[in-house]
Amino acid sequence: MNEERKRRSDGYHHGNLRQALLAAARGLLEEKGPHGLALREIARRVGVSAPSAYHHFPSLDAIAVALAQIGLNELHQAMLAAPTNERGMLRLAGRAYIDFARKNPQLYRLIFGERFTGSSEQGAQLAALRAATHDFLIERLGRRLPPEQTAVAAVYLWSLIHGLTMLVLDSHLSADPDFDALVDKVLSLAGTGIASSGTE
Amino acid sequence: MNEERKRRSDGYHHGNLRQALLAAARGLLEEKGPHGLALREIARRVGVSAPSAYHHFPSLDAIAVALAQIGLNELHQAMLAAPTNERGMLRLAGRAYIDFARKNPQLYRLIFGERFTGSSEQGAQLAALRAATHDFLIERLGRRLPPEQTAVAAVYLWSLIHGLTMLVLDSHLSADPDFDALVDKVLSLAGTGIASSGTE
Repeated sequence: MNEERKRRSDGYHHGNLRQALLAAARGLLEEKGPHGLALREIARRVGVSAPSAYHHFPSLDAIAVALAQIGLNELHQAMLAAPTNERGMLRLAGRAYIDFARKNPQLYRLIFGERFTGSSEQGAQLAALRAATHDFLIERLGRRLPPEQTAVAAVYLWSLIHGLTMLVLDSHLSADPDFDALVDKVLSLAGTGIASSGTE
Repeated sequence: MNEERKRRSDGYHHGNLRQALLAAARGLLEEKGPHGLALREIARRVGVSAPSAYHHFPSLDAIAVALAQIGLNELHQAMLAAPTNERGMLRLAGRAYIDFARKNPQLYRLIFGERFTGSSEQGAQLAALRAATHDFLIERLGRRLPPEQTAVAAVYLWSLIHGLTMLVLDSHLSADPDFDALVDKVLSLAGTGIASSGTE
């Protein structure tokens, strides 16, 4: 087994090793969380030396940004795949968002900057990637709201969906037998609000 | 006996040392975040030995729970202090919540379980403390909604406020010259929603 690994490591083509490192990093991320990412362990799992790994990714932050980019692309595709031409299109996109986060909880935390926050260059790269998702929200909201209302509405919707996601990931919502129905009900309130009396 | 003499030589009475340890822990928390908490460093800052600190807090988790309890009490008091008898009472309580989190960002992260998540005994204690804040929300919502609607509305409002708070703390919202006004507008949408057409 050890020998097999060695032979494989010698046989990696450039692109293959990069992909293999990213796949191992993603596995480690979901196992241990953003604080468990370690370049040496990623290299070990792929069966190559740490310097070989450094050849592809100069730092752990470089791997983290590459993973976040993969994750944001998948998140974006999941929302794009939700129907756009029917009642509840925002609710359906919201469901796709939350489903992605539930399937990739640690990747979602990484995307939102856990561990790699701050003013680092990598933090700035992550921020730019997240801005694309924000733009998606603005575009969708532009289909139903006048332009001067879309900015605040985007913060509102993003807060609601991010907050619901984090409460779910951090297990702050008591286990609901029909969790999907609860999510749908909460996302429906995004459209209607809870105003029912003189208070706002 | 020996211990009693030691404590006196530290110059602390029993209750005073406990308070001093908590104050030092809170300072360290806001400086370094939940992952930077360390009992030895807390003891060093107070000027006592680690065993003296262990006499009051058997573990770092015990200090974390005590800090979270202090934080949740302050958060609760801040929301109770918001006016309840006028239009926008939920918005004002929401503002008090977010203002508390902005002034105590790392304490807020600790309250929501960063680092001390999972199924530990301390995690369960934190969950019970958070439940009281959830009950506060249910009670306030009960003043304007029929009972069968309060549970979903509470998840909705809590998601919105927690999400907005986390986006602010993690610097995902671009710096707004009038940030408080933005928060007010977002919280106002909690009442009205964004429905404006056939989509929901």
